[in-house]
Amino acid sequence: MSVFEPGSDRKFAFGRSPIFGSVATPDGSVAPVETWELIYQLGDVGAWGVALHDDEVAPSGAAPAELDDNFDKVSKALDSTGMVVSMTRTNLSGYPVFDDGAFTSVDREVRRYAIQKAMRGIDVGAELGADLHDLPAEGVSSVAATAPLDALDRYREAIDFLCGYVSDQGYSTRLAVHAKSPAHRGESLIATIGGALAFVNTLDRPEMVGLNTGFAHRASPGGCYGVDQALAVGKLFNVELNAHVGHEPNPGVGSASVGDAFFLVKLLVETNYDGPLHFDLDVGYLGGAAGICDLVGGCMRTCRALVAKAKRFADDPEIRDALTECGATELAEPSVGPFCPDAGRMLSVERFDARAMTSRRCRGQRLDQLVADLVLGLR
Amino acid sequence: MSVFEPGSDRKFAFGRSPIFGSVATPDGSVAPVETWELIYQLGDVGAWGVALHDDEVAPSGAAPAELDDNFDKVSKALDSTGMVVSMTRTNLSGYPVFDDGAFTSVDREVRRYAIQKAMRGIDVGAELGADLHDLPAEGVSSVAATAPLDALDRYREAIDFLCGYVSDQGYSTRLAVHAKSPAHRGESLIATIGGALAFVNTLDRPEMVGLNTGFAHRASPGGCYGVDQALAVGKLFNVELNAHVGHEPNPGVGSASVGDAFFLVKLLVETNYDGPLHFDLDVGYLGGAAGICDLVGGCMRTCRALVAKAKRFADDPEIRDALTECGATELAEPSVGPFCPDAGRMLSVERFDARAMTSRRCRGQRLDQLVADLVLGLR
Amino acid sequence: MSVFEPGSDRKFAFGRSPIFGSVATPDGSVAPVETWELIYQLGDVGAWGVALHDDEVAPSGAAPAELDDNFDKVSKALDSTGMVVSMTRTNLSGYPVFDDGAFTSVDREVRRYAIQKAMRGIDVGAELGADLHDLPAEGVSSVAATAPLDALDRYREAIDFLCGYVSDQGYSTRLAVHAKSPAHRGESLIATIGGALAFVNTLDRPEMVGLNTGFAHRASPGGCYGVDQALAVGKLFNVELNAHVGHEPNPGVGSASVGDAFFLVKLLVETNYDGPLHFDLDVGYLGGAAGICDLVGGCMRTCRALVAKAKRFADDPEIRDALTECGATELAEPSVGPFCPDAGRMLSVERFDARAMTSRRCRGQRLDQLVADLVLGLR
Amino acid sequence: MSVFEPGSDRKFAFGRSPIFGSVATPDGSVAPVETWELIYQLGDVGAWGVALHDDEVAPSGAAPAELDDNFDKVSKALDSTGMVVSMTRTNLSGYPVFDDGAFTSVDREVRRYAIQKAMRGIDVGAELGADLHDLPAEGVSSVAATAPLDALDRYREAIDFLCGYVSDQGYSTRLAVHAKSPAHRGESLIATIGGALAFVNTLDRPEMVGLNTGFAHRASPGGCYGVDQALAVGKLFNVELNAHVGHEPNPGVGSASVGDAFFLVKLLVETNYDGPLHFDLDVGYLGGAAGICDLVGGCMRTCRALVAKAKRFADDPEIRDALTECGATELAEPSVGPFCPDAGRMLSVERFDARAMTSRRCRGQRLDQLVADLVLGLR
Repeated sequence: MSVFEPGSDRKFAFGRSPIFGSVATPDGSVAPVETWELIYQLGDVGAWGVALHDDEVAPSGAAPAELDDNFDKVSKALDSTGMVVSMTRTNLSGYPVFDDGAFTSVDREVRRYAIQKAMRGIDVGAELGADLHDLPAEGVSSVAATAPLDALDRYREAIDFLCGYVSDQGYSTRLAVHAKSPAHRGESLIATIGGALAFVNTLDRPEMVGLNTGFAHRASPGGCYGVDQALAVGKLFNVELNAHVGHEPNPGVGSASVGDAFFLVKLLVETNYDGPLHFDLDVGYLGGAAGICDLVGGCMRTCRALVAKAKRFADDPEIRDALTECGATELAEPSVGPFCPDAGRMLSVERFDARAMTSRRCRGQRLDQLVADLVLGLR
Repeated sequence: MSVFEPGSDRKFAFGRSPIFGSVATPDGSVAPVETWELIYQLGDVGAWGVALHDDEVAPSGAAPAELDDNFDKVSKALDSTGMVVSMTRTNLSGYPVFDDGAFTSVDREVRRYAIQKAMRGIDVGAELGADLHDLPAEGVSSVAATAPLDALDRYREAIDFLCGYVSDQGYSTRLAVHAKSPAHRGESLIATIGGALAFVNTLDRPEMVGLNTGFAHRASPGGCYGVDQALAVGKLFNVELNAHVGHEPNPGVGSASVGDAFFLVKLLVETNYDGPLHFDLDVGYLGGAAGICDLVGGCMRTCRALVAKAKRFADDPEIRDALTECGATELAEPSVGPFCPDAGRMLSVERFDARAMTSRRCRGQRLDQLVADLVLGLR
Repeated sequence: MSVFEPGSDRKFAFGRSPIFGSVATPDGSVAPVETWELIYQLGDVGAWGVALHDDEVAPSGAAPAELDDNFDKVSKALDSTGMVVSMTRTNLSGYPVFDDGAFTSVDREVRRYAIQKAMRGIDVGAELGADLHDLPAEGVSSVAATAPLDALDRYREAIDFLCGYVSDQGYSTRLAVHAKSPAHRGESLIATIGGALAFVNTLDRPEMVGLNTGFAHRASPGGCYGVDQALAVGKLFNVELNAHVGHEPNPGVGSASVGDAFFLVKLLVETNYDGPLHFDLDVGYLGGAAGICDLVGGCMRTCRALVAKAKRFADDPEIRDALTECGATELAEPSVGPFCPDAGRMLSVERFDARAMTSRRCRGQRLDQLVADLVLGLR
Repeated sequence: MSVFEPGSDRKFAFGRSPIFGSVATPDGSVAPVETWELIYQLGDVGAWGVALHDDEVAPSGAAPAELDDNFDKVSKALDSTGMVVSMTRTNLSGYPVFDDGAFTSVDREVRRYAIQKAMRGIDVGAELGADLHDLPAEGVSSVAATAPLDALDRYREAIDFLCGYVSDQGYSTRLAVHAKSPAHRGESLIATIGGALAFVNTLDRPEMVGLNTGFAHRASPGGCYGVDQALAVGKLFNVELNAHVGHEPNPGVGSASVGDAFFLVKLLVETNYDGPLHFDLDVGYLGGAAGICDLVGGCMRTCRALVAKAKRFADDPEIRDALTECGATELAEPSVGPFCPDAGRMLSVERFDARAMTSRRCRGQRLDQLVADLVLGLR
């Protein structure tokens, strides 16, 4: 079936994380492929986009000639493959100077340095035609040293400044903040999708900023809750589909928690999400460049299969019947409508038969099993 | 020291959770004390407030005479002890009819029944003079049956309706939504403080609704992140100080994770939080009514000690010195100020000495140890 | 295909957990079906066995006539359906007296009472022909009050005593200890499969005692690690296949984490596990008796599908090829064999080309994707 | 008080983790101090021992002259400071070749290479007089490629071989396996203390092998359960006291979860543990060499304070009284003694008053509060 074949019908995008993940040792090193080589490889497998860190094109301290050469090679690779840069990212990992915080470091000069680095990263994206620029999650290593409200203020100040910069430069770039659970750098300042949404609401130009997120970095049934809030307010700018389980990228949608992956993809399909379907590739995990093709192809294949299953969920008569049977279709109907005194009075005197309601409780078992069948390919 | 003695200087409030937690068996039952008895007991230990579930005063199906008698006994107990009702709560646990969702049940009648129950709970609170009414977290048992965006719509509809009801009745009650990790009922619709904040932003009258939350129900360093976002926008209406570790109420601030408790209390002190300091008492855990006095006294004692330590943090010269030394005081200073083209230009050409910045990185060790000393009572 | 149809070819066993889970309220109660009715219902769907709590047949304080009647009805139901009792269980939940520990309570009389209850539970099992008796996980509510080494001693003493009792009665019953993460009762004394295995090694008659466990009650890739240790030493007496995710029974193999479920079932197939395939049914979740049929049928259906997929893993030529390609088949070969001085000397001077080894690193991507395809029904 | 001052009365030992944690970048690098410098620094603060990775003394590929020079400098530093090497460790992190497993890699040559590296690491330890050699946790990146039972066999084969090597060389070294939750390398083969204990029981020479562990890498009340099992069978060879919360080393005992730390230290004191009190120092976290002194001194200071608190727990009359009151002292008494038919008969007919037992349930609140007071320095 065509949905399992490589193609350009989906906005599949890939990036490397972390770009400094490979360490040279006397005993055997992993050399990551060059950025342009990666683009050619991704293009061969049918990817639509690539997410690039600033340092992958414009490493700090590079001479102008080197920069020109890098941009040139990347542009050629993009032209040749027909791929786009789905987003650029300011890379802060691998730099000890940012390990205690970047936009929220206690060191004002570090904060300024981080903002400058983000400006340059945004420039890189603008030059390469990326619509989106991703800012990494902020982490805190000493809770005592980092007053939470001040840290929120500094984070807001930085994003507001960068929005101003984007506007002033005439870029159309949108910014994405990254909600993430604590991982590499102590405690995340904003660890949840909801926290990121609430934070965006406090910005000067909330319309310019959204989220880059996905599974909320935890394995649980219904991993789509949280993402739904972002989708409901149009703030899911980029979805990460890696099944983060524990702290190890586990590439390939749903290799660990395919139930979560199904419900997330189903939600994306139902809400007509049209942003990138992004996967981070852990270069350390790849065992060298040779594994990229298998991995990238697999990610797309699994995602397409889940998309097909999500569509089948909508179309399958037995599933529709089970949805009706357990009352699920009723959830779209208002419970009470907007308040008015009459509605309040009527509801307050309505008589309910709790025993009857209990006895007809949601018989989700049949529906859940149909979904299990669907996911497992039994229907 | 007075800070360790019972007194009325703090808004210490206590409630029972869950109120249906004790099960009658042939082999030995736990009979929870009557509501008014609990109030007398709390008053004896010096508590300021009590949080009451609707069913503790007005159980479903109670006859008018029974209701009058209950209100009468509760009012007398409040008068006699000088205590207040810090908040009322709509109890949905222990009712199987709500186990698949209340305001977001797939059964429209169940949704209406839940809203009616909340209206009555709000009435109870208004009659008893409570400023705040707490609505429990919404849970989902079948992800397939509960379309996330519809569930959010129904939840919003219910809260908007209840705000309308509060206004129409002329009550001054504010409502609190409860951000909670998945526990008793499958997956929580809104599991995080941030999610609750973002949700409140979408309501018709966001000013009437805030959060009842606390440790975000997880043990981690810096458990105050998340709570800080609620405080920053004035939305922390009630703080729960139980040290939830795992899924067992572990009453007594910080008996498990006193570091978290310290930073949370410190944040409350620094932001002049003036709401209730709330503790849920697990009646099953208490071993009968006899333990309440020890437990309630212990909660207040530990909390007062942490308040004293938080004040000491602000005043201690060596801690102030360590804060300065590691640059923490600089975090209150703007990094770049508001964007203007000139500021952007200047920052973009600023030269930074990354090596120097790295070498002066946050020496939080001394500060962290001073905090450890402070918490352990070594200073 | 027959593997998807109900049948008696697998040892599918079901039990209720917790049996006191439903609470009578004025507003709508859930009445669990009688034990014998449950057996008829399970038999209708094709189950092989039922796991019974002592209290489901012989509730505390029951009169002799009631007991006789219960045994009679259960025996008739078993005869009529051809089902067996796969195991009996001492029920300790729902009794507040055991909430601070049972075999390890600080109250010696409670410990004796718990052992007596287990003896009676074992008697019930012997009378009903059960091979296995399951003892619940021990929990601790006050760490300060429960000296860990004493608690281990008391737990060991209780199990040793019960083994003596089983022998003395001439029963062929084996006992199962339950490794479990902290849930209902504070901290589990022994929270992991490994801890239970190590504990069994310290018993007087380790051959009589094994484990009742499954997913180790956490969601992670490779949930089979841990279970493998129990299988390797012949100590997996009963496997629980509920996909515990969080703390809510989520019935139906793999509805949440089908990857974990696949690898666990694959391990059971590969090691010719021949014990019960057990599922706990949460009566609260069922929405009344009516859902049992759907749920039980679904559990068996999914499990059979996973068994078929596990067999396919072993037979599929492309998977075999991918296993060979990534070197997986080499893992069965000894690395160095038993130590002898010559082997030591030779290994110590062997020259390795680390770079070459790194560059041929495990290309698991293709294999992992084939497994994803297998699980999703794409092959 | 002397317990807060640096001294040599405790076996405080420190090591670096991970030794390849610092990455050179154009923008600011962290250069870890040389091994001998670290020893002098540790000696200055009063540490007793240092834990060394093989590569810190004998890096792969080092020329004989370099090795001699390294051993010379380290020996001089040890002599000069009077410190000992508490243990040596085979370092496998930072080498991509081991990222899919070392002793359990699917690549037989990699497995042999890892064993050779461990032999050399053991040699380094023997030359430096270390009693203990620590072997890192085994990780698995592709569950499909790594058959669990084969992996256990290979792991056992490697440890058995290394025990043979130690014997054959006439070393007195004991080996430690490392129980660890999944972190850097996918899934840990043996993730728990109990799993490691059960594994050691299957070795050829179990008496030569024990555990290097600590908080079981999770934050929970009663983090001492698990460690207690290792202590009960004399298998805790080295205790790690870092308060691992999440996956970030959080140096300083108990800075996050001082309750856990207290109960662990209390258990060590009560069981007369006499092995090293070990801390891993994260060089990335230190902000350069300058922070070591503060951090190391702080770890010892906090640990000494907790030891003093643990002793106070044993001596304090009010705590003793609370222990008696809640019946905790009764836990040391046998419940039933060894089984004999008479004891069985008597217990089976004993009458218990469940209601009375329930009503006198463990009143741990007072005790728990006394412990809270003790930890907070209020008594």
